[in-house]
Amino acid sequence: VVEQTIRAARAAFLKMRCLSGEQKNAALSAFADLLASDGDYWLAENRKDLQEQKGLVPDSIYHRLELDRDKLSQLISGVRALIALDEPCDRTLWRRKLDDGLILEKKTVPIGVIGVIFEARPDAVAQILSLFLKSGNAAVLKGGKEARHSNAAMREILLKLAQRCPFLPDGWAGFLTTQDEARQMLAYDQWIDLVIPRGSNQLVRSVMATTSIPVLGHADGICHVYVESSADLEKSLAVVIDAKTQYPAACNAVECVLIDQAVADVFLQALQPEARRHGLQLLGCEKVRRILPLTEPVTDWSTEYGDLLLALKIVDGCDEAVAHINRFGSHHTDAVMSANAEVRAKFLNEVDSANVFVNVSTRFADGYRYGMGAEVGVSTSKLHARGPVGIDGLLTYKYCLSGDGHIVADYSGASARSFRHEDF
Amino acid sequence: VVEQTIRAARAAFLKMRCLSGEQKNAALSAFADLLASDGDYWLAENRKDLQEQKGLVPDSIYHRLELDRDKLSQLISGVRALIALDEPCDRTLWRRKLDDGLILEKKTVPIGVIGVIFEARPDAVAQILSLFLKSGNAAVLKGGKEARHSNAAMREILLKLAQRCPFLPDGWAGFLTTQDEARQMLAYDQWIDLVIPRGSNQLVRSVMATTSIPVLGHADGICHVYVESSADLEKSLAVVIDAKTQYPAACNAVECVLIDQAVADVFLQALQPEARRHGLQLLGCEKVRRILPLTEPVTDWSTEYGDLLLALKIVDGCDEAVAHINRFGSHHTDAVMSANAEVRAKFLNEVDSANVFVNVSTRFADGYRYGMGAEVGVSTSKLHARGPVGIDGLLTYKYCLSGDGHIVADYSGASARSFRHEDF
Repeated sequence: VVEQTIRAARAAFLKMRCLSGEQKNAALSAFADLLASDGDYWLAENRKDLQEQKGLVPDSIYHRLELDRDKLSQLISGVRALIALDEPCDRTLWRRKLDDGLILEKKTVPIGVIGVIFEARPDAVAQILSLFLKSGNAAVLKGGKEARHSNAAMREILLKLAQRCPFLPDGWAGFLTTQDEARQMLAYDQWIDLVIPRGSNQLVRSVMATTSIPVLGHADGICHVYVESSADLEKSLAVVIDAKTQYPAACNAVECVLIDQAVADVFLQALQPEARRHGLQLLGCEKVRRILPLTEPVTDWSTEYGDLLLALKIVDGCDEAVAHINRFGSHHTDAVMSANAEVRAKFLNEVDSANVFVNVSTRFADGYRYGMGAEVGVSTSKLHARGPVGIDGLLTYKYCLSGDGHIVADYSGASARSFRHEDF
Repeated sequence: VVEQTIRAARAAFLKMRCLSGEQKNAALSAFADLLASDGDYWLAENRKDLQEQKGLVPDSIYHRLELDRDKLSQLISGVRALIALDEPCDRTLWRRKLDDGLILEKKTVPIGVIGVIFEARPDAVAQILSLFLKSGNAAVLKGGKEARHSNAAMREILLKLAQRCPFLPDGWAGFLTTQDEARQMLAYDQWIDLVIPRGSNQLVRSVMATTSIPVLGHADGICHVYVESSADLEKSLAVVIDAKTQYPAACNAVECVLIDQAVADVFLQALQPEARRHGLQLLGCEKVRRILPLTEPVTDWSTEYGDLLLALKIVDGCDEAVAHINRFGSHHTDAVMSANAEVRAKFLNEVDSANVFVNVSTRFADGYRYGMGAEVGVSTSKLHARGPVGIDGLLTYKYCLSGDGHIVADYSGASARSFRHEDF
């Protein structure tokens, strides 16, 4: 069944590339209509999942499993927003005349067949499917077992979509159901071009460890805020509290605050009551614990707490802060609070992370907030796509060269023709 | 020694990013001068390698090991051409106003520390180093053992470069010497961002199999020419002969020609004498062997001969040709010969390869011929860089966000601010 699903997706992918922009938009429009008309059914099935999982899964997963009318209408408007976007495929990135009659074009094309493995998050299934439709990729999906009722309802919606849009190739969105099937899929490195795990760090890590297919995502979100000596301490305090407490389980929540020696005493004294008010437990290095004696020590600077815990470290200037971040961080999102333009430029330049921020909360690192519309995920890989990934991350390109019987032999040797290399 | 070299390269990388465009160009200019002044010494050391390896290595490797005055002067002008290119780093790809005072910029940055493993090709070492200098990446290099004298001479040239350009950080180009050291390097997936193997398919395959670091390159070059029924057969013959015989060991040489049934007889009868004239041995499918009875059968359609051998197959139209290419090819370079615009468009759209050509030889798939200047290699991966890879493939990007204490909490809930998302 796994090989069959993947084969069908590969065949569908070749046909997806022949769909026109109008057809893809018609499918998106029908999908949005179906989400609106059949949304109540989807929500009802989701409540079955919630009842079954209540008490069995951690709060954070339960929260991600839950659909509601707000998430649904956000999703529908997200799908409709994709319709308005320019056709992303078959765009000419550049054209170059290599010689008379010999024209090279670099054009965008979809990546191919993408495997997606979910934990909880039934809304993410619908979001990913809409992004794949717009970008012309075929999908092999494995939904989270916690969301089996929700995902079965989504498959029914997709069957209706296939009826309304007969031009959509069969098998463009294949479903796997068991973990064993997902494991099998990860072995098809010749037929699956990319894998996207959507879920916990553990899921991402285990996918990365077991496949030789490229993986888009990030295992860790160990983000920092560095409060430099010239920083506005009031704003710094607000940013740190926001970055930690607004949604502590988010990958872009801060895990460690670095504070310049010169402002440590004032900043920490102000932080302590705010932390208490937010139920936030502070951990610190030796120097911090001399100022806040009740603080527990930090045992590991590379921990993603994902909870109301915050590590604090006093540093001696920007060099030490940058070195700490590059060594212990996960290259996801790091921010500096500073009124000094030289320090800000240094931090932006030297911190080796996908998102590097000045005087704002790390929580802004997100496709929606960046204005990308929907988001496939956040990548901490440096290759292909980095940071929040939207439609662009689902595309690659190909080189198309057209001529009239041109041969390479004419361009080598003594009386060789030479290339013109003129860009249009 | 391996860890020390990699650590030094990581430290150097952070400093490479602080070099100005003028400094990088000054280093390139000094490098070109040194290649000119010390080129004779390098060539003399190269002759020692050639004497040692004569008879020990296959002809194709011996050929790649050999430096001469032509290669040297091409290399020098290649380095000088890089100086003229615009500064590739810290370019703003786009700027977006998320809200008042909250500005997001997507900027190009170098990838980081790149490991390069060579077989023979001492000139490729110098070419890669010049590309790394321009793009601000740090290198950990393992030269081919066949080229040990040439590479030792290159290290001496780099020592002189360091003296002339004291702003270049120590360790920006680290050298490993043994195969065991290269193997050790491939385990440092936290510190090495990308690996580029430059050599045989076997080398590339063994690197891909033993590391979890992303690898830029291609193992196979199984390229096709499809002669469609409307094709100009004279041009098709010239293209096939060029694509196979002009340099049979090249990765973009054709391995298999697909011929439409309708023109098979005429084309094959014309091909046979030309093949004999070029010492080219033909292999064929059953149908081909009925037309050319002395032709050997093809045992495997996924073979890269890399030699004067050519597989021939008769197909029934474009669909079969495209299906064959997508199934047995290596997604490198494939060409169609056709006078039919519909067929050409279909072929360009449906063939899932990095380079898809119309009415020209597959041998044009090459960074120099594409006008990219120097080339890092050709990638058959769909992610990050595809096809011939120049400076652009050595860059990634980062998102830089600047504000004035902006926090995410202000953008959620009942009285939330909304994002403006205005592109500059």
